[in-house]
Amino acid sequence: MLFQVRMDVDLPRDLDPAQRDDVLAREKAYSQELQRSGEWAHLWRIVGHYANISVFDVESNARLHEILSSLPLFPYMRIEVTPLTTHPSAIRTED
Amino acid sequence: MLFQVRMDVDLPRDLDPAQRDDVLAREKAYSQELQRSGEWAHLWRIVGHYANISVFDVESNARLHEILSSLPLFPYMRIEVTPLTTHPSAIRTED
Amino acid sequence: MLFQVRMDVDLPRDLDPAQRDDVLAREKAYSQELQRSGEWAHLWRIVGHYANISVFDVESNARLHEILSSLPLFPYMRIEVTPLTTHPSAIRTED
Amino acid sequence: MLFQVRMDVDLPRDLDPAQRDDVLAREKAYSQELQRSGEWAHLWRIVGHYANISVFDVESNARLHEILSSLPLFPYMRIEVTPLTTHPSAIRTED
Amino acid sequence: MLFQVRMDVDLPRDLDPAQRDDVLAREKAYSQELQRSGEWAHLWRIVGHYANISVFDVESNARLHEILSSLPLFPYMRIEVTPLTTHPSAIRTED
Amino acid sequence: MLFQVRMDVDLPRDLDPAQRDDVLAREKAYSQELQRSGEWAHLWRIVGHYANISVFDVESNARLHEILSSLPLFPYMRIEVTPLTTHPSAIRTED
Amino acid sequence: MLFQVRMDVDLPRDLDPAQRDDVLAREKAYSQELQRSGEWAHLWRIVGHYANISVFDVESNARLHEILSSLPLFPYMRIEVTPLTTHPSAIRTED
Amino acid sequence: MLFQVRMDVDLPRDLDPAQRDDVLAREKAYSQELQRSGEWAHLWRIVGHYANISVFDVESNARLHEILSSLPLFPYMRIEVTPLTTHPSAIRTED
Amino acid sequence: MLFQVRMDVDLPRDLDPAQRDDVLAREKAYSQELQRSGEWAHLWRIVGHYANISVFDVESNARLHEILSSLPLFPYMRIEVTPLTTHPSAIRTED
Amino acid sequence: MLFQVRMDVDLPRDLDPAQRDDVLAREKAYSQELQRSGEWAHLWRIVGHYANISVFDVESNARLHEILSSLPLFPYMRIEVTPLTTHPSAIRTED
Repeated sequence: MLFQVRMDVDLPRDLDPAQRDDVLAREKAYSQELQRSGEWAHLWRIVGHYANISVFDVESNARLHEILSSLPLFPYMRIEVTPLTTHPSAIRTED
Repeated sequence: MLFQVRMDVDLPRDLDPAQRDDVLAREKAYSQELQRSGEWAHLWRIVGHYANISVFDVESNARLHEILSSLPLFPYMRIEVTPLTTHPSAIRTED
Repeated sequence: MLFQVRMDVDLPRDLDPAQRDDVLAREKAYSQELQRSGEWAHLWRIVGHYANISVFDVESNARLHEILSSLPLFPYMRIEVTPLTTHPSAIRTED
Repeated sequence: MLFQVRMDVDLPRDLDPAQRDDVLAREKAYSQELQRSGEWAHLWRIVGHYANISVFDVESNARLHEILSSLPLFPYMRIEVTPLTTHPSAIRTED
Repeated sequence: MLFQVRMDVDLPRDLDPAQRDDVLAREKAYSQELQRSGEWAHLWRIVGHYANISVFDVESNARLHEILSSLPLFPYMRIEVTPLTTHPSAIRTED
Repeated sequence: MLFQVRMDVDLPRDLDPAQRDDVLAREKAYSQELQRSGEWAHLWRIVGHYANISVFDVESNARLHEILSSLPLFPYMRIEVTPLTTHPSAIRTED
Repeated sequence: MLFQVRMDVDLPRDLDPAQRDDVLAREKAYSQELQRSGEWAHLWRIVGHYANISVFDVESNARLHEILSSLPLFPYMRIEVTPLTTHPSAIRTED
Repeated sequence: MLFQVRMDVDLPRDLDPAQRDDVLAREKAYSQELQRSGEWAHLWRIVGHYANISVFDVESNARLHEILSSLPLFPYMRIEVTPLTTHPSAIRTED
Repeated sequence: MLFQVRMDVDLPRDLDPAQRDDVLAREKAYSQELQRSGEWAHLWRIVGHYANISVFDVESNARLHEILSSLPLFPYMRIEVTPLTTHPSAIRTED
Repeated sequence: MLFQVRMDVDLPRDLDPAQRDDVLAREKAYSQELQRSGEWAHLWRIVGHYANISVFDVESNARLHEILSSLPLFPYMRIEVTPLTTHPSAIRTED
């Protein structure tokens, strides 16, 4: 089941540099693990923003919330979720 | 070069049924031709809306405008364009 | 899987009265059939508005879109969809 | 009498951890007590947000304000209240 | 139980003049009947707008919706409802 | 001359408790003095918000600004002012 | 008593040309009469818009509403009213 | 050349009182100097707000920016600029 | 003096085709005449929109309003005007 | 390939003055280097704002993101990106 998710990051300026490096490293590792498992199907940077547009392919709403609320950057992000489904004119339905 | 495009369709209620069928058939054919050529990379339906979220892979802004303004449904759509680029944490960069 | 859906109805003033009665009767029948099947879990009127707030319990995004886009009033409604999941403090999880 | 209430939580980053644990524990206990009494009729998590959508069944506006303003998280939440009533197409009116 | 209600009127320009006069006369009569019964507690014009701000004193949400949806101008108005309660600093609580 | 005023309070979390108690006590006394003089004609709490909706009956814009800018909570409030006048359908014009 | 008023005009495209000329001529005459009496203190065009920003000097809210709702263009305008008063740094208070 | 300018002031709560007094005194002096020179043509307080609506009469955009960015309160203000011109129905064009 | 102007075109669907062709031809001729004179300094299409972003170089607000309100498409456009001036980091000031 | 970019700067009040001077000097140098290379094609100040409107001429979305995210002021700016293309009525296409 597909969802578009937009994440805008707003890291506090006074975040401890070591803590900042740590949270970013964990975010990257976690994101790549989910990309390899196939649940984080697409991940793009928005030009000019510290933000991404992603597509998730998960088995349920509950699983999507589990993934998003476990993101190391979750406390520092504004998130928008848009449920998607197959478009009748799409020639590929694998995603 | 990647762009996310959201299109919300608002067909006038008094559109002639034959004209309506014609514009929808041409829209579908044009969309599928662009999907086959690879320029219309992704196409999803937004749940509960007469709208889609798409990703285009084009060589220039000019080409993207040519594609969008040639859509048979162009006069009946509200369009939002968001330029994308590769995300540093993405493990695949083919799209 | 749960989704909150808000529907605001805007019937055109010049809709043929017979067509209007027909679409409203079909909407009611369809809504009640889905309530009986359990997919349309809750349905409330918003005070002062020709609008409702509903909760749907469906097996997938695709099924939710099928239900919503098949509503007889679909062409005359503005719809907002919000994915829900179980709250950690909820004492009942049946809904 | 039914009201939909949406609550978005924004805990200050510098809240003392002990105070934070305390306020969250009291919020949960208070919420569950009101669920058991039947006044907090429904409670759902919004996917991707530190927020909930709830339905309250109370005897008056005054009682709803008493409940909401007594929430331990009240100083840290943005709240929206929408009065509801029975929908003429609803097949169940118990809620 | 008190509610503030704001009503913005937008009469279609092509409304038949006789129908227009009729709906306005019925609106006035209905409004004054409810003012006399005490349920329509306050009614003010907003300067520069074809709109009013009112306060209703009703026994329930259901009654408020019954009143508002029965207004002859209901199909031509945008309505906002705000639940009110007694303010702790108010020296009069009769309203 | 009547004005509707909505005031949303946002007290800084780090306000000194003694200063906070003092400002709230002075606000209450000032508000009740103006209610007794008749200039603060109505005062209601908005359900679920640290906010009020009020109606002022003053002799001029200048007097209304004098009252509002003298509120002890003025530095901590967002204020909206809406000029009102008698509604042609109102049966009472005393307010 | 001073009010800033912004008026945005939106004349229907299908307005009868004679009716259009008549309403515009009456609007101009009425506006100039009020300018001469001193109640319509300032009148400016907003660059690039069919709109004006005005300042009215009237004895009451009621008089301002009487003026605005009598404008021949009133049914075709969106109006915003902002109450003004003397600024403590102003060196002239005649307006 | 005329411009309407709205300025909303938001002084930080923790501004040093001496610095605050100084910036306000310099703002007042600077404003009155520009009023005397004729460039700051009008200055009004907005009722209920720490804000003003002004009209400037300057020889160019560059001069207007020079004036506004030199305001002692500039770092603490949100500013909106609206270009104005003579209205065809205005009976006075001196301003 | 420089102004950025954004124009969004919304041609009515029922515009007579001959009238439509005529207005578009006159718009193009008028725009090119102003480009040649140097007053319409830049003109770009916004990708995916029937809209443009332009920069005008004019001697006054009055001249800019004269230009914009004389555009053949003026009745069918939404226009936003933003006054510009030289940026202190710009290496070229000819525009 | 052309993009309009609007940048609104919001420097934290408590930024160390030396750090502030440094970031502004580096921003200016970087901006002028890109103007000389031709990628930062236009740069204007918005009157009354600590903001600019710019036009970039770059070979790709990726390059635009590289430029913008490398701006020394990037952490302190809100940025909006609008893809542009040649307008069919433009008489110059060099930009």
